[in-house]
Order: sequence, then C-alpha cells, then structure tokens
Amino acid sequence: MKKHSKHRRSSKAGLPPGSLVHIGDESAVTRIHGIRYNERGGQRLPIPDADHLPVPGEEGILWLQVQGVNDARIIEKLGHRFRLHPLLLEDVMSTDQRPKIEDYGDHLFIVMRSLEWVRGSGVIQKQIALVLGKGYVISFEEGDSELSFTSVVGRILDHRGRVCEQEADYLAYSLIDSVVDHYFAVLESVSDEIEALEEEVLTGKEGLLSRIHYLKRELIVLRKSIWPLREALVFMERQHSTLISSELTLFFRDIYDHTIHIVDTIESFRDMLSGLLDVHLSSISTRLNQVMKVLTVITTIFMPLTLLTGLYGMNFHYMPELQSPWGYPAVLCAMALITGGMVWFFKRIGWL
Amino acid sequence: MKKHSKHRRSSKAGLPPGSLVHIGDESAVTRIHGIRYNERGGQRLPIPDADHLPVPGEEGILWLQVQGVNDARIIEKLGHRFRLHPLLLEDVMSTDQRPKIEDYGDHLFIVMRSLEWVRGSGVIQKQIALVLGKGYVISFEEGDSELSFTSVVGRILDHRGRVCEQEADYLAYSLIDSVVDHYFAVLESVSDEIEALEEEVLTGKEGLLSRIHYLKRELIVLRKSIWPLREALVFMERQHSTLISSELTLFFRDIYDHTIHIVDTIESFRDMLSGLLDVHLSSISTRLNQVMKVLTVITTIFMPLTLLTGLYGMNFHYMPELQSPWGYPAVLCAMALITGGMVWFFKRIGWL
Amino acid sequence: MKKHSKHRRSSKAGLPPGSLVHIGDESAVTRIHGIRYNERGGQRLPIPDADHLPVPGEEGILWLQVQGVNDARIIEKLGHRFRLHPLLLEDVMSTDQRPKIEDYGDHLFIVMRSLEWVRGSGVIQKQIALVLGKGYVISFEEGDSELSFTSVVGRILDHRGRVCEQEADYLAYSLIDSVVDHYFAVLESVSDEIEALEEEVLTGKEGLLSRIHYLKRELIVLRKSIWPLREALVFMERQHSTLISSELTLFFRDIYDHTIHIVDTIESFRDMLSGLLDVHLSSISTRLNQVMKVLTVITTIFMPLTLLTGLYGMNFHYMPELQSPWGYPAVLCAMALITGGMVWFFKRIGWL
Amino acid sequence: MKKHSKHRRSSKAGLPPGSLVHIGDESAVTRIHGIRYNERGGQRLPIPDADHLPVPGEEGILWLQVQGVNDARIIEKLGHRFRLHPLLLEDVMSTDQRPKIEDYGDHLFIVMRSLEWVRGSGVIQKQIALVLGKGYVISFEEGDSELSFTSVVGRILDHRGRVCEQEADYLAYSLIDSVVDHYFAVLESVSDEIEALEEEVLTGKEGLLSRIHYLKRELIVLRKSIWPLREALVFMERQHSTLISSELTLFFRDIYDHTIHIVDTIESFRDMLSGLLDVHLSSISTRLNQVMKVLTVITTIFMPLTLLTGLYGMNFHYMPELQSPWGYPAVLCAMALITGGMVWFFKRIGWL
Amino acid sequence: MKKHSKHRRSSKAGLPPGSLVHIGDESAVTRIHGIRYNERGGQRLPIPDADHLPVPGEEGILWLQVQGVNDARIIEKLGHRFRLHPLLLEDVMSTDQRPKIEDYGDHLFIVMRSLEWVRGSGVIQKQIALVLGKGYVISFEEGDSELSFTSVVGRILDHRGRVCEQEADYLAYSLIDSVVDHYFAVLESVSDEIEALEEEVLTGKEGLLSRIHYLKRELIVLRKSIWPLREALVFMERQHSTLISSELTLFFRDIYDHTIHIVDTIESFRDMLSGLLDVHLSSISTRLNQVMKVLTVITTIFMPLTLLTGLYGMNFHYMPELQSPWGYPAVLCAMALITGGMVWFFKRIGWL
Repeated sequence: MKKHSKHRRSSKAGLPPGSLVHIGDESAVTRIHGIRYNERGGQRLPIPDADHLPVPGEEGILWLQVQGVNDARIIEKLGHRFRLHPLLLEDVMSTDQRPKIEDYGDHLFIVMRSLEWVRGSGVIQKQIALVLGKGYVISFEEGDSELSFTSVVGRILDHRGRVCEQEADYLAYSLIDSVVDHYFAVLESVSDEIEALEEEVLTGKEGLLSRIHYLKRELIVLRKSIWPLREALVFMERQHSTLISSELTLFFRDIYDHTIHIVDTIESFRDMLSGLLDVHLSSISTRLNQVMKVLTVITTIFMPLTLLTGLYGMNFHYMPELQSPWGYPAVLCAMALITGGMVWFFKRIGWL
Repeated sequence: MKKHSKHRRSSKAGLPPGSLVHIGDESAVTRIHGIRYNERGGQRLPIPDADHLPVPGEEGILWLQVQGVNDARIIEKLGHRFRLHPLLLEDVMSTDQRPKIEDYGDHLFIVMRSLEWVRGSGVIQKQIALVLGKGYVISFEEGDSELSFTSVVGRILDHRGRVCEQEADYLAYSLIDSVVDHYFAVLESVSDEIEALEEEVLTGKEGLLSRIHYLKRELIVLRKSIWPLREALVFMERQHSTLISSELTLFFRDIYDHTIHIVDTIESFRDMLSGLLDVHLSSISTRLNQVMKVLTVITTIFMPLTLLTGLYGMNFHYMPELQSPWGYPAVLCAMALITGGMVWFFKRIGWL
Repeated sequence: MKKHSKHRRSSKAGLPPGSLVHIGDESAVTRIHGIRYNERGGQRLPIPDADHLPVPGEEGILWLQVQGVNDARIIEKLGHRFRLHPLLLEDVMSTDQRPKIEDYGDHLFIVMRSLEWVRGSGVIQKQIALVLGKGYVISFEEGDSELSFTSVVGRILDHRGRVCEQEADYLAYSLIDSVVDHYFAVLESVSDEIEALEEEVLTGKEGLLSRIHYLKRELIVLRKSIWPLREALVFMERQHSTLISSELTLFFRDIYDHTIHIVDTIESFRDMLSGLLDVHLSSISTRLNQVMKVLTVITTIFMPLTLLTGLYGMNFHYMPELQSPWGYPAVLCAMALITGGMVWFFKRIGWL
Repeated sequence: MKKHSKHRRSSKAGLPPGSLVHIGDESAVTRIHGIRYNERGGQRLPIPDADHLPVPGEEGILWLQVQGVNDARIIEKLGHRFRLHPLLLEDVMSTDQRPKIEDYGDHLFIVMRSLEWVRGSGVIQKQIALVLGKGYVISFEEGDSELSFTSVVGRILDHRGRVCEQEADYLAYSLIDSVVDHYFAVLESVSDEIEALEEEVLTGKEGLLSRIHYLKRELIVLRKSIWPLREALVFMERQHSTLISSELTLFFRDIYDHTIHIVDTIESFRDMLSGLLDVHLSSISTRLNQVMKVLTVITTIFMPLTLLTGLYGMNFHYMPELQSPWGYPAVLCAMALITGGMVWFFKRIGWL
Repeated sequence: MKKHSKHRRSSKAGLPPGSLVHIGDESAVTRIHGIRYNERGGQRLPIPDADHLPVPGEEGILWLQVQGVNDARIIEKLGHRFRLHPLLLEDVMSTDQRPKIEDYGDHLFIVMRSLEWVRGSGVIQKQIALVLGKGYVISFEEGDSELSFTSVVGRILDHRGRVCEQEADYLAYSLIDSVVDHYFAVLESVSDEIEALEEEVLTGKEGLLSRIHYLKRELIVLRKSIWPLREALVFMERQHSTLISSELTLFFRDIYDHTIHIVDTIESFRDMLSGLLDVHLSSISTRLNQVMKVLTVITTIFMPLTLLTGLYGMNFHYMPELQSPWGYPAVLCAMALITGGMVWFFKRIGWL
C-alpha cells in the first residue's frame, strides 16, 4: 500500500517487451493463498510453494489470491502453469497500470485500482489484477498489506450468498463489485471534506488554499483511477467473451451504472471545488477592500486634524487666534466636529 | 423528502450483491396503495398488508403506489409476487440512484428524481422508481411525504383524460411526464433567483458571493439529477421494448425533447452565473480602485499643506516671513490655492 | 413579440399530456390568413372564421398563416381539420419550444425561433412553427406583431421566383430560409456592438462591465435558439421524409451550412467577448497600479520633507543650526534637493 | 483582398434563394483567364468576353481562373455554360462562406479561404472557390489582387511536375495543396509573434495586453477559417465522388494530415497565449505588491521619526530633555538607530 | 536533435507536391546502417554507399537504419529501391510531421516523435519514421545524434529476446515500443519537476511564474507529440494491414494502452499545473493583504500619536496643560496607552 509512490517505469526502458520487472515498492513478499469451492461449500487449499500450485479441475472453482507481486520467479511459474501471456504477467508486476479489461481468448485479464481514504493523507491506492479463466480466478494484489477480499472469502467459507452456487465468472463479478463498493466510501469521505471546507470558506477563514489544492489533486487522482474502469466495464456488459454467462450481464451492467454514478459525482465535486476556490479568492479581495477602507478612513480623519495642529504650531508673530483665550478650546471643538463629521460620513457610505 | 442528506452507501460495502439494505432516511413507514382501472373507469383497491397483494389480471390495469422504501420485508414480498430481479429491488431501496431505464425482459425499470424548489433551502429531491410490466405499474416513492402523483390518480378516479382507455405503458408515460413537468417549475424558480441576483450584482451590492455559490451548487445538483434521464429516454423513444406500444413513441419523444430543453436551460443558467460571478468579482476590484483613489486624493491634498505648516513651525532665528504681518494670511492663501488646484486637477482626471 | 418574457410553463404541471394551454403573452388575437397558388400564380383566400377553413386540393398549394397562437379553440379546429397530433398542437401553443423537426408520418412539424436585434434592448425572439403536409403548409407565428414572411407572400402573389412552380416542400424551405437569413442581420449587429466595445475597452474606458455582461447573455440566448436548429436540419438534408423531394436536399443542405456558419460565428463572438472581459479586468488592475504608484510617489516625496521641518521645529535649547543665519535657506535647499532627487529617481524607474 | 471587412449578408434577407448578389467589396472587376493542357504541355487560352467561353473537350484539361466575383452577369453566364447549380453560384459570390466541399453529382464544389499574414495588420483572407468537373476546373478568387496560383500556372506552362500528365482532379488537388501550404507560412509568423511576446512578458514589460488580445483574435479567425476544411477533406479522402480517382486518395489524405497538423498547432498557440495572459496578469499583481511594499517601508520608517520630532516640538514647560545639551544629538542618534533597524528588518524579510 | 527549432515549412510553398526538400536542421550527414537477421542470429551489413543498398530476401529480415534525413539524393535512391511513394519520402524529410500511421498497400509508414527530457532545457524531440515492408524495416532518424535503438540492435546481435525468431512486424513493434518506453522517463521527470514546484509554491516562494509557464508549455508540446500516436495505434490494433500478423495485435494493444496511460497522465499534469498557478496567484493576493495590513497597522498606531504631539506643539497662549508639571509625563502615558490599546486590538482581530 502506498501514497503517490513513484513507479519508476523508466527502469524498464531498453528491456525487451514482456520482461518481468517489478515496478513499485520492493519490500513486499509474494504469497499465494488458495480456495476451492463448489455448491457444497468452500475450503482453503494449502499451497506450500510456487512449484506445487493447484490446477482448476472438476472438484470446483479454484481461486488463487496472490499477495505482493514483486517476486518475478513466482509470477512466472504461475504464468507458466495457467498459460498466461507474458504481457499479462508484465502488467501484473507493473503496479501503475491503467484500469482495463483484456480478452486473451481463454482467459480475461482485469486491472483495477483499489482505493481507500486515510484521514490526513488522502487517497491510498493499490493495484488489483484479476485473471478469469475456465473454472478459476487468480487475483493479484499489490503490496503486503491485509488482503482486500475478506468479505468474499468469508461468504465462500461460510457458504453464504450465491457465490458457491455459481461459476467462476460470478466470483470475478463479486470481486469487482467489492472493489467498486469501496469507492463509495472514498467519495463520502471526500464529500465530508468538501462540506467542511465549504463552511470554513464561507465564514471567511484564511489559509484554506493548500487544503483546497490538495483535495483537488486527490480528485484528479481519483478520476484517473476510476474513469477508465467505466470503458472497461462496457466490454463486460456487452458480453463479448464466452467466459461471462449471459445471466451475469445484468450484474455487470449494475457495476457499470455504479462507476458512471461515481464518475458523475467526481465531476460534481470538481465543479464544487472550483466554485469554492472562486469564493475563497474573492473573499481575499473583499478582505483587502476592508483593510484599504480602514486605512483610508484613518488617514482621512487624522490628516485634517494634524494639519490643524500644524497650523497653530506655526511661529508667525501676527496670528491673532493664538492670543485669544478661546483659541485652544475652539480648536479642540473644531477637531471634535471634524472627527464627528467624518465618522458620520463614513458610516453613511457604509465604510464603518 | 430530504435535502442533500447523506446516503451512506458505504454501509453496504462487504455485503453480497443484491442485499436489500435501505440507504437513506430511516424514519419513513412503507405503505402500499392500489388502484385498478379499465376503460370503464378506475377505483382504489384495499390492501390490508403485504401478504395480500393484488395481481395483474383481466379486470384492468393495476397500479401499486409504494410510499417509503425502507421496509426490506415488504419490498421483498412485492419483488417475490411480481418476480422482480434482486438487483432491481436493491436499486429501489438505495435512494441515491442515478436516473436510468433498465430492461429486465418482462418488465422495465425506470429510476427518476422528483425535484422541488423550496424557497430558502433550494432543491429538494426524492427518488421515484417505476416498474412497468404486462398490465401493471408499480411506483416507488422515497420518504413518507405526500404522494407525488395526485393529479394522475385524480384523472383515473374521475375518468378524465385518456389514461383509462390506454394500456399500462400510457400510465408509465403519464407518471414520467408528471415528474418532468415539475422540473420546469424548478427552473422557473432558479431563473427568478438569477434575475434577482443579476440586478443586485449590477447595482453593486456586496456580499452576494455565497448566494451565487449556493445557486451554482444547486445547478450542479440539478444537472446531475436530470442529465442521465435524457440518455435513458432515448431508450424509450427508440422503442426497444415490447412493453411500449409504437403509438407511445411520439409521447416519449415529447418528454425527451423536454429533458433536452431543460438540460440546455441549465447549461445557460450555469453560463449566466459564471458571468455574474465575473461581474461581481470585477466590481470588487473596481470598488478597491475607488477606495484607493480617495486615499490618494486625501493624501495628496493634505501632505503639502502639512509640510507648509511644518515649515513655518521651524524654530530658526532668521526666518523673515515670520516677522511679516502678511505671513500668516499669505500661508493661509497658499494653502487655499494648493487645495483648490488639487481638487481641480483630480476633478479633471476624473478621480473626484 | 417579446423580450425574455417568462413562459410560465409550470402552469401546465398536473394537466394531462396534450392539454392545449397557451404559454406566453396573452394579449394577442389569433387570426388566419390563407393563400393558394399553383404554377399560374397565387391569390389570397378569404377566411371568415375557423369553422370555414379551406382544404388542400387539386387547385394548388394551400398556405395558411396563423398569427397569434393563444386561442385554443381555433388551434383545435385547425388541428381537427388537418388531423394534427395533439402533442403538435400543444407545442404550437407553448411558445418556448426548442427548435426541432418532427416527423408525424403524413406531416412534418418544424419549430424555429425568429430573431431580431433591437438597438437598446438586444435580441427579440418569437416562435415560428411550420406544418408541412401533402399539398399544404401551415405557419404559426407567436404574438400579433406584423407577419414575418411578407417577402415570400410578395413573391407568390407577384409570381416572382420559383415558389409558384414548386411543391409545398419548396414553400417550407423558403420560409425556413427566410428565418435563417434574418439571423445574419442579428449577427452583424452583435459584431458591430463587439467592435465598438473592443475599441472602448482598449482605450481604457471604465464601466463597460455591464455592457459586456449583457452582450454575453444575448449570445447565450442566441446560441440556445439557433444551435438545436442545426441538428434538426440534418434530418431535412438526409431526406428521411417522403414529403421532401430529393431535389430539395441541396437546398436544405445550404440552410444547414448557414446554420453551422452562424453557430461558428457565435462561438467566435463568445471567445472574443471572453477576451474583452480579460482585457477589461486587467486594465482595472493596471489602473490600480497607477493609482498606487501616485500615492507612493507623493508619500515618498513629502514624508522626508515633513520630517525635516519637524526636526527643526523641536524645542531643544542647544541646536546650533537654529542660530545660524544660513540655517533656514540651507533647509530650503535641502528640501529642494530631496524633491528633485526623488522626482528624478521616480522618472528613471518609470513611475512618473 | 481585405481585412475583417464586413460582409453585409443581411442585404440578401428577403430575396429568393439562389439570388446572385455579391457580398463583399464592390470595387473589383471580374476577369477570366483560361489555360488548356494535356500530356504534351499547356498554353493560355484567349478569352475575349464571357459570351465566348471555351468548353471542356478532347484536346485536354481546361482550367478557367476567375478573378473577382462581383459581376453577377459574368458568373451567371459561366454557370449557364457549365450547368452549375444556382446555389453554387450564390455561394461563389458570397465571399464569407465557411470552407466546405459539396458534391453536385457531375461536379464538385470546394470553398476554401486563402490566408496571408501581413506584418502590422494580421491575417488577410480571401475566398477561393473551385469547381471540379469532368475535364475542367474553374477557380474563383475574391478581389482583384494578384492571382494566387502563379506557381501552378508556371508548372503547367513550363511543363514541370506531374500536373500535365494527370487528370483534372490532380489539378484541383494541386490548387488545394497550394492554398494549404500557405497556411504554414501564416502559422510561422504567428509563432514568431508569440515567441517575441513571450520574451517581453517574462521580462515584465507593460502594456502588452492589447497585443496579446489582437493575437488571440487572429487565432480565433484562423481557426474558424481552417477548422471546417478538415471535415471537408475527409470527404475527399474517403473518395465519395467518381470525379476523384482512387490514386489521388493518398494525396488528399496528405493534405488532410496537413490541416489536422495546422489545427493542432493553432490549438497549441491558443493554449500558449492563454498561458501568456496569465503570466502577464499575475506580473501586474506582483508589481502592485512591489509598489505597496515600497509604500509600506517608506511609511514605516518615517512615521516613528516624525513622531519623535513632534514629541520634542511640544511646548510643555517641564520637559527635562529639552534643557540637556545632549538632547538634540541623542534624538539624532535615536533616529539613525530607528532608521538602521527598520532597514535591517525590511532587508531581512526581503522587502528591500 | 533540437529544441523547438523552427521547421521552416513555408520554404516549400509553391513547390509541386512530393518535392524532396529537407525541413529541419541542415548540419547532419545522412548515413545508412544495415542489419540482417533470422532465427539463427543477426549481423551487421556493410553498406558502402546509397548505390549499393541490400535488398530484402530469403536469407532473413533486413533492417536499414537511416541516420540524418537531409540528403535528398540518398533518400531518393532508397525510395527508388524499395518503391516508396514520393509523399512518404517527402514526409520522411520534413521533420515536423504529426505522428501517424499510413498504409501504402505493400508497406506501412509510421511517424513518431522520440522525446527526451534534458534538465534545464526541457523536452528535446526528434522525428522517427519507420517503413515496414514484406521482410524489411527501414527506420529514419532525424539529426546526427547517437542512434535511438541501441538496445534493440544489441538484442538482435546478441540473439537475446524474441526478435530474431519473429517476422519484420515484430521488429517494427519493438522499435515503437522502445520509443514509447522513453515517454515514461520524460513523464517521470515532469512529475518530479511538478512536485518540486508544488512544494515551493505552497511554502510561498515568489518568482515561480515563469517556471510554471515553461512547464505548462512543455506539456502542450508533449501532448501534441503523443496524442496523435494514440489514434494511429488504433489502426495497428485493429489489424487493418496484412503486414501485421494477428498474434501481434495483443502487443500493439499493449502499446496502445501505454499511450492512453501517458495521455491521461499528461492531462492530470496539466490540471495540477493549473491548480498550482491558481495557488501561486492567490498567494500573491494573500501577501498583498499582509502588506496592506502592516501599512494600516503602522498608520493607525502612529497617526493618533503624531496628532497628540502636534496638539501640544501649538502656540496658543492659554493652554493650561502646558504649564502643568504633569503635562509631559501624562502625554507620554497617554501615548503608551494608545499604542498598547492599538496593538491589543490588532492582535485580537488577527492582523498582528
């Protein structure tokens, strides 16, 4: 699991196509978990090492969960056992793929990005790759964090829901559905964040710019991760592959609707954030106006008063006012009148 | 009925697809109202509880109005009776659906959003779902507010209009038409609001930013609610389903035209609001300019005067002017001349 | 004829579809004028009232001009006589239709907006609806202003041009062409307005914001009125209807080209106005800069001078300069030098 | 040849379609030049007047160059001789056509805009119309400036290149290619202008706004002139007409690629200019910041000093400092310290 | 190799189509390198001059690497030998082509732009053209910098990877793949640059405008170079040509996915840069606000103090305070109180 980590794809430049080089964090260990199930229920398969992989067979549907995709040796053995295309394996190990669905004839290859919103650091993503073949599904997860599909595993082992009665395509559907369902949670977190920001912006709080900026950037990342899935799912819905039974079309159309809904929502969020930025920027201008008004009011009130004191500070010999006993009180009165008049005037034009 | 309430869809993450969990406000009670009509007129059907639902039959068209969609048990029974797909029921109970039309073979599923403009709180929406089958229509309404289709009910019971003479597809059309007709009322309210804003902005009123912002956000919500309906109605117009008779194509094209008209109008409103924002922002800048000019004028007039008084406030022993009896009047004259000249100059360049 | 008048469409909410309720100004009176022509020439038909409408027949092409569309009774009789669809009649009476072309089998329905630029109040529009049937054309015009198609009427009565030799489809084409031709005049007025604005903006005139804003809004309205016509004319060009003879395709393609040209021009105008707004806004900023420079120059020159006078206005007993006869002239010289230096400096950095 | 001259198209409103009225400058004289060529070479044809026009025949390809399109009589005779459609002739004479290609069955009609960049006045355009028929090409040029196709004429008369060996379609191709080639020269001039502007903007020069604005407007005009040609050329490439031989498809695809390249470049230029405007506007803001900092620094330094002098300018009888011989030097020192401290402070925070 | 060098395409205006004129830098020398390989390995071919070019034959796949494309004579001979279309040769020599793939029947023509990010001067590009024929590939590289495909050459000569076992189409694929792989390195450099900028902008550094501007411009250039390749690759993937074997479709789809990924990323970068610009601009406004607040605070504190000193600097004979021994200390106290009160007030409203 990572946050905007650099996928140094450039390290592959110069290698022949189909070279298995891991792109992503290097620390994870590659582990394989196996589950086999049929209409009577499901159970975990012990997998000692990559040389003893189970094969799809008549006993039921096989599901291999590969955790961590940086061990080229293991991935290669898996690829050999299930006759996967070298380019497919290359894509599995490059964890910066664009979401897509590819038809390799006897198996379908699905790449998605699993998203999670972590308070304080934004969207965390990892790549999920699925291979759907006749009687088996292989799921690849980037990194060595906890596995994603615990709820689906639970449903199989506890024999809940309809997964056990169905073919491998229903399992693939369940896994995709589970990934897409998590997108809604991310959107809700973003929505909360936007509403909080909105309140702060409209009450005139300052220094929100970087927060608006970061949220905007998260939305750019979100869109880039989810948008291509939409196109990919059209493929599923139109049932181009014999690996997808016709009854499942309705289900894939349902996920497709969800992704459209999500993409629409992201667009709305982007619009709202742009609006917020406008409000924020113009509230800066408005505040500048306020500051300038204060400055102008202060200057306008004090300058005439200072002039008056300067006037009677002059040293001319013949200034009759200076001798008068009423001179000083008169000046004080004049100053009070000027101040009062100015305050009244600025109150009237709304500057105070 | 609600305003931007959180649909906590994330609460469904981890559940198997097709799980009936209500997403939305929980307070409402689910009630079912029944109407049966044929060319001789229509009448209400008593429905004691969800175990005694009427069936579509030869006596006429059946219309079930479901009010409130949070009771999974009732929705499930209804789904069982009319053989509705689990995903359809799931969508009915999730009240944050994107408008869409889905063809389930022997029934069509239509999701819309009913909109209302409430002065002071903006657009209020609720989800309307329709199921159109052979000889029956089921309408689901979110929340327990008053029912939406009172005018259509009235037309059936009073045997007015053409609903009674027609098949179920005409009823579905009438319901969609009734929802879309309300959109115009919302648009008119928005239009009034924009015109009021425009006048205030152009007369230079301040503090309109948050109002422009809220109106903009309402338009984003409106568009998100109406735009997808447009695509959905293309399906109806092209008459893909055998449930829609060919004579109704003209009617659905009419609604389709209305939605395009509405979407166009929303786009125009968005353009106008953007224009208003520009005007508002630049009127802030213009006012800043005014303030700065006042400040500059004040400073430019008073600074030379103050300097003059300072000059003759100096204590040099040899300042011939100080002894002259004309010194003081001369300084006062000079100050009057300077002030007059400045005022004339600033008037000429238009700063005063 | 009207200017952005409110079409209170919401007043129809709740009525059954196809209800004939006039939306628009209520004052106009509905009148019908008739013309019949064939290759030998044309003549006016007397039409006493709506109960004695002429019928299309062998004697020639019939053209009914309906002026004012608010009398539901007359419109209904007309609809009954020519067997027009209720939805069509509803659209005729709702004068806020989006331009469109609809095929009702034995007649085509065309809705357009006639535009006129009135100096001082911008674009005035009225709705023109055409029904093209076998051997007849009915034109509906909103409002009771003077009729639009005087030039076409003239050509028929004077037996000029090719209208008389052709079928009803050529008449419909001539009417559409005549409406579209007027769009160019509107565009030219807008173009003149933009050029005038451009000159004023670039010479730095103030207070142009509301004029730019109004022109922008007119363009939004223009685009909304013309853009849909473009799509509608594709229908004509592709000759989907048997009511349009194949020779007329070239003519409709010509109008189609005109509308594309117009839409392109409107887009260019929008771009230009946006550019003008940018220039205007930044000229406000530039002027602010000028004002601030003046303020800074004034302050920077007078503050040191005032300080100097303050310095020698102090009352210390031991200030040798005060006794010197050269003290006062020296201070005056110093002030002149400071002022000269400042002015020279500000001239050099270009602030004066 | 003209610069943004008004094409008063509105003058045609009310006339029947196909009316031959010249729209554009009226001063030019209409002249016709003729060339006939075959694989043995080409030669000029004497054309005394419009009544003695050569006809296409077996002796070779005929090319008529019409210079100036404002003499309706000559255009009409030409149209009659070559059986051209009235709408085509109308388009030839209206010199504000949108670029397009129209198929009239036995002849193709091509409208283009020839562009030229004139230093100081921007883009100058004139309309070029081509008619390609069996064995002949007619080219119409707006205005009476020098003819555009001198290089093609030279190649024919000197029997260079492949024009003479080919059919009329190759001549049409050569003419279009020659017009498109000139677009590159215009783009290069615009590119030079943008680079010059960029340098000036980044060095902070003022008063560039109107130049950016004019360049932006030229790009709007350019795009409007070139963009439609792109669509039109798709027609040529797809070889819809029998007048274009299949071998020429490659050549038309080549021009098509050029126009796409040009349109891409114009878009890049627009993006760059928008970027430049942003830089320019924000450099105005930055300069305002600089000015304000100077003002603030000046005010902050001089105000305390002035206060100090004011303090010791007070006339209290009991002010011990005034009697002290060190009072005056002490105040001077204090003022020097304050000034030094302020300068140091403002240097540290980067305002000086 | 060059940086935004002018391709003076205008120099070709007036020449017949297909003229071989080099557009680009003139200094390079044209050299041809040959390689022939089959499943047993590959070896370099000696090529003395352009008159002794090897021919494709049964011994294996022929690969000609042409370095520098400004010698029309050599290019022409090559074209003659391999029967290449004149327009193809023209495109090879014009080094400002838009990326594209063209099908000339018995050979495919592919134009790409090879990109490199050079620290300090941005994106450097050169044009790569490929001709894929039956049994041979010709690659043309602009300029005389080092050859691009050293890694592919190495793989052939060392008999590594799958190139040697495959047909010419796989070689073409490898070359395209190698070019596209380098795009990722460029994107990573841009990404680093953006992150560095982002940090600086958010810490409020000034003077970043020109850097943001240059980066934006590089992205415009990048997009223009890569975007068209995407469309071109659709052609490859859809396998329109018999020169591409069906097995290679998967590989070309892979490159196609890469280009989409790259284009998506460029779009995200553009969005991020726009966001950065907004942040930068508004941080300028925010700083202006700060400056103005400082000015206002200074003015507001010192003006009343100065007024007070002016007051007691007046020369009235009857000012009782002046005689009082507590007058001076009282004024000093009042000034301290005023200052303290102001500071407290400005602290409370957050201006200090």
